Amino acid sequence: MTGPTRKKLSGIFTPNMVPLDENDRINEPELRRYTEWLIANGISGLYPNGSTGEFTRFSFEERKEIVRIMSEQAGGRVQILAGAAEANVRTTIQACEYYASLGVDAVAIVSPFYYKISDESVYAYFDEIARNTPVDITLYNIPQFANPISLDCIKRLSEHPRIIGLKDSSRDLPFFLNLMNEISPLRPDFVFLLGCEEMLVPSLVMGGDGGTIATSGIVPEVIMRMYHLTKQGQLTEAVEIQYKVLQLIKSLIFGTDFPEGCRAGLEIRGFRMGRGRMPLSPSQRCDRQSLRTHLQCLISEHGLVEEPPGGCPTRQPARLEVDRVEIERIVSSVLSRLRQQGAV
Amino acid sequence: MTGPTRKKLSGIFTPNMVPLDENDRINEPELRRYTEWLIANGISGLYPNGSTGEFTRFSFEERKEIVRIMSEQAGGRVQILAGAAEANVRTTIQACEYYASLGVDAVAIVSPFYYKISDESVYAYFDEIARNTPVDITLYNIPQFANPISLDCIKRLSEHPRIIGLKDSSRDLPFFLNLMNEISPLRPDFVFLLGCEEMLVPSLVMGGDGGTIATSGIVPEVIMRMYHLTKQGQLTEAVEIQYKVLQLIKSLIFGTDFPEGCRAGLEIRGFRMGRGRMPLSPSQRCDRQSLRTHLQCLISEHGLVEEPPGGCPTRQPARLEVDRVEIERIVSSVLSRLRQQGAV
Amino acid sequence: MTGPTRKKLSGIFTPNMVPLDENDRINEPELRRYTEWLIANGISGLYPNGSTGEFTRFSFEERKEIVRIMSEQAGGRVQILAGAAEANVRTTIQACEYYASLGVDAVAIVSPFYYKISDESVYAYFDEIARNTPVDITLYNIPQFANPISLDCIKRLSEHPRIIGLKDSSRDLPFFLNLMNEISPLRPDFVFLLGCEEMLVPSLVMGGDGGTIATSGIVPEVIMRMYHLTKQGQLTEAVEIQYKVLQLIKSLIFGTDFPEGCRAGLEIRGFRMGRGRMPLSPSQRCDRQSLRTHLQCLISEHGLVEEPPGGCPTRQPARLEVDRVEIERIVSSVLSRLRQQGAV
Amino acid sequence: MTGPTRKKLSGIFTPNMVPLDENDRINEPELRRYTEWLIANGISGLYPNGSTGEFTRFSFEERKEIVRIMSEQAGGRVQILAGAAEANVRTTIQACEYYASLGVDAVAIVSPFYYKISDESVYAYFDEIARNTPVDITLYNIPQFANPISLDCIKRLSEHPRIIGLKDSSRDLPFFLNLMNEISPLRPDFVFLLGCEEMLVPSLVMGGDGGTIATSGIVPEVIMRMYHLTKQGQLTEAVEIQYKVLQLIKSLIFGTDFPEGCRAGLEIRGFRMGRGRMPLSPSQRCDRQSLRTHLQCLISEHGLVEEPPGGCPTRQPARLEVDRVEIERIVSSVLSRLRQQGAV
Repeated sequence: MTGPTRKKLSGIFTPNMVPLDENDRINEPELRRYTEWLIANGISGLYPNGSTGEFTRFSFEERKEIVRIMSEQAGGRVQILAGAAEANVRTTIQACEYYASLGVDAVAIVSPFYYKISDESVYAYFDEIARNTPVDITLYNIPQFANPISLDCIKRLSEHPRIIGLKDSSRDLPFFLNLMNEISPLRPDFVFLLGCEEMLVPSLVMGGDGGTIATSGIVPEVIMRMYHLTKQGQLTEAVEIQYKVLQLIKSLIFGTDFPEGCRAGLEIRGFRMGRGRMPLSPSQRCDRQSLRTHLQCLISEHGLVEEPPGGCPTRQPARLEVDRVEIERIVSSVLSRLRQQGAV
Repeated sequence: MTGPTRKKLSGIFTPNMVPLDENDRINEPELRRYTEWLIANGISGLYPNGSTGEFTRFSFEERKEIVRIMSEQAGGRVQILAGAAEANVRTTIQACEYYASLGVDAVAIVSPFYYKISDESVYAYFDEIARNTPVDITLYNIPQFANPISLDCIKRLSEHPRIIGLKDSSRDLPFFLNLMNEISPLRPDFVFLLGCEEMLVPSLVMGGDGGTIATSGIVPEVIMRMYHLTKQGQLTEAVEIQYKVLQLIKSLIFGTDFPEGCRAGLEIRGFRMGRGRMPLSPSQRCDRQSLRTHLQCLISEHGLVEEPPGGCPTRQPARLEVDRVEIERIVSSVLSRLRQQGAV
Repeated sequence: MTGPTRKKLSGIFTPNMVPLDENDRINEPELRRYTEWLIANGISGLYPNGSTGEFTRFSFEERKEIVRIMSEQAGGRVQILAGAAEANVRTTIQACEYYASLGVDAVAIVSPFYYKISDESVYAYFDEIARNTPVDITLYNIPQFANPISLDCIKRLSEHPRIIGLKDSSRDLPFFLNLMNEISPLRPDFVFLLGCEEMLVPSLVMGGDGGTIATSGIVPEVIMRMYHLTKQGQLTEAVEIQYKVLQLIKSLIFGTDFPEGCRAGLEIRGFRMGRGRMPLSPSQRCDRQSLRTHLQCLISEHGLVEEPPGGCPTRQPARLEVDRVEIERIVSSVLSRLRQQGAV
Repeated sequence: MTGPTRKKLSGIFTPNMVPLDENDRINEPELRRYTEWLIANGISGLYPNGSTGEFTRFSFEERKEIVRIMSEQAGGRVQILAGAAEANVRTTIQACEYYASLGVDAVAIVSPFYYKISDESVYAYFDEIARNTPVDITLYNIPQFANPISLDCIKRLSEHPRIIGLKDSSRDLPFFLNLMNEISPLRPDFVFLLGCEEMLVPSLVMGGDGGTIATSGIVPEVIMRMYHLTKQGQLTEAVEIQYKVLQLIKSLIFGTDFPEGCRAGLEIRGFRMGRGRMPLSPSQRCDRQSLRTHLQCLISEHGLVEEPPGGCPTRQPARLEVDRVEIERIVSSVLSRLRQQGAV
């Protein structure tokens, strides 16, 4: 698109997890290697300090370090949308200033969380930031975790030139459609990114600009193929992939406390993530090991990673729960199909 | 489709409201006239005793009467899905027996409501009905109003031959997609109807079988056109209509206490609905009159109904709220476009 | 109390379950025997057609029959608060008229349920009933199951002479205290009944007028003793009983789908309740049998009922879960203490 | 109490707000003056870094500074319960270590927030902290803002010697009573503090150990008198004060976004709080000024603060909303009564 309604951001932004070393510090070489791998696998943009990136579990200094490392590594090859929410308005504006100095394309700012605040206060918060930021902003609506940003609030905020779009993780498609319907006429360049991977294809069909998709950090080949097929109008295949990734999403995103499934998935893809900063109960650690082994087996069939040390079962082992077996079957089938098509 | 996976139900089922006379009784001639009008306007099926039909506000005898009148009037020209939920299992099974004797195609049964019950009890409820019903059943999931029917529960229930499908009004597209993904392989003839009008087009794109759509009772020409365009793969036009009906949906479904907006809409289309059985506050009655006048003006522009007694404003009147004016503009535009295309 | 602020209702009202015969009909002789037993055990009033009484699972004719039988049997010896909510305003007013003709002291009307309606509509509903009822009304607030009745709405409704009080089952003590604080000055005779058995004693300490207490239908001796001790200012003992019944409440009210625990408890006390109208899953039927056996053993120690056919374990049996054993210990201890004091 | 069940903490802990200077930095002299004033007014303990203290809006360094200043100023005259929740387990343990070095009596740790985590993970989080902390911990349950800590989880955690109690802000008295009932027998020295000011008196009657009460930071004279009266068994007077503070609580805690009402109240009491770190919309700023003026007038009648510059109305001014006037009347009446009794 050209002209005044050209959209600044579009496509699939990957909200990346952050590898830690054995001292619980950011593992810079591994983070660079992961950034490189994502770019090589065709993602549209990077999204450091998102919810998948566990931004609340790092310090302000660490969050700045994460964006610095990744934007250095990307070197302008892909867009960067940096999460910039901090403890209060003043610090959030400092974050915007720093990320602007690094040359990011935009920042994403989640609504205030912990305290329940009124719609008016949500507006006042973003209004003050928009008046003072040197970098473009996308609003980040995730009512499961933070104060909701209402349609009316977004409409008012869209009057700020610095507020260029929204990332909606509400999982509420009617809300997302009403947003596009009511805000686009007022602000044709406003960007609508979906943060709900189960319905990326239908949202794109309805005119969405893309998404911030956690599974694109684990299987970027699959998600990018699904995205491009949809944009090219090859809906039959795109819908088929959307269905085939549903079980993978269920396992990676909803199988354990978010985002532990993603961490397990990344280790299977060959990244040393370290221990997370949230302690896991013995039972959860156990599940994770089991998940890792079986996913590693699954993906290894397709040559993406090696088999785990103990080798892989040749058939459904008795100790597997039916669910895992089903996941294995489904993911295996989607990857196999994509491979036949030369996509991965 | 042919063979064992042929689906029993598909398309748009209209959950109809029930006209009342001045004595608060079912207005049989008007109900017959309304049924006739719906069939003439191309709806796929009738859905008496749905939530739009205010089933909880009628007696068992009245609910039976409603289905009797409508199935008599339809005379087999369209399918009938009859709401059969009653106060307890025994009475619900009696309802199934009666509706079977009338020759309806299937019944829809909402999960128990008022008391919060466990998933196990939801299963036990439908299981007992499925073992005893002489007519096919669709499960009706509407967690806003009644106990939710979980994916696992639906999966177990789909083993009953008598349970042939689901109507999902949860407004949760990821849930609906996971349902289709996990149940279709086990039960290829299982019917998936969506009860959320804002996302009918995307659900059809993803393979849904149709929907129970309250606005199809008010503007059946518009909704049926949107449905057929989608099924014919004319997505650009279908998506455009989906967006254009969003404001109408907002006004009819969410503008006042459901389903008062629909009652107002029906009066504008020329049906004498009578007073509802839920008292309205003075302020709501006022809003309703205003809505009726303006919608009547709006539709009258397209020759569908006459102008109201006092005539219609030629331009945006000062006393109108912006919202109403926007609705007017949008609905006017969708109908005008459809008219140009010869659709209405 | 005397003078204009004399309250019409006070004390403990028992929301009774309804015994059914083998044909799923109301078991009139058993209902009369149960009514008699409750009166003999000192309850302040009867509350037929409450949530505990599963009013939604009976027909209008049955609900009328239940109140007729019980008010006949009571013969004016205790007060009667009859649940009068029906499918719509017109039928609810018919119910009020019938219960007035039976001489009940007041009716309780739950807010409309199933549909979510606005505060204004909740007001309009009760306003219309209050203008037309020949009998006094208590509002019934149970936001878990029905539309909430807000503090402001209750304040406005308290202007109707026919609306004499409220039964609050919200489990929200701050709400209940604010209600008493803001409505009593405007309407000193307004009655505040609590529908949350875990905090009956603290609510009475704060000036509440009594409660509708499901466990008073199973162990009326215990609940009435707790009530009278509190009213007599013997707080140490009353608090001790309140704590001791917490585990019993947990088991009877929250152990299974409400009100199945109460049905089991009543059978242990010697009433033939019949099968409920909500089917139970095999696992739940199993739990219920186990609960019944162990509660029967427990109460039999105190001479209130006989031992079950197979006799009772002399000590904690290995197959019992810790929970059940704890319940047994606690209830045994509270009843034993009460027996020593000559209370039961 | 003596012996092994002596409780470490009891009484009223004040969760203090933090005065800021014109550069948005902690105003140390004013914070010291406020601390001194609270101690002089008889509060049992200080509770820096609570929700009232807006802990999430400060940095880790600032939170440490707040506790350092206040514990220095208190010099052991009252107990200190320091909020120690940080971004992750490692940092939270560092906070515990630092607060231990300052000699605080215990720390309060809120459950993880933002992400929804399982009960098992809540347990794992507190378990890891409890194994590594050099200072005693109270669990802080506030399910409105953070992941809930379930009864079973608290029961398991109470096995740690370092976990000595709980602060419950759930506003759910049945939950609080069940906690006391099930945990006290296992751990007689476990401390139960309530964080819900509307029901402090009833919780104390039921055996609670005290509370963390935001209004005790604004009107410590009133809250401490209510507390002591309850502990001395003078329930009639205590209940009367509890009712009279309900409107004040409504205004201070629920009138605007929490904790802005408290900030306004503190300025009326003579503390320079500075601008908060959350921007306020113009309408909210307006409300705040109005609240401040009227509360200042109110309290000035009792000689606690001076009249505002413009003087105070002698009677209900026309522009006041009814609500404010009622608040004024009620607070005036409670303070006047307390003054007559020589309490303030």
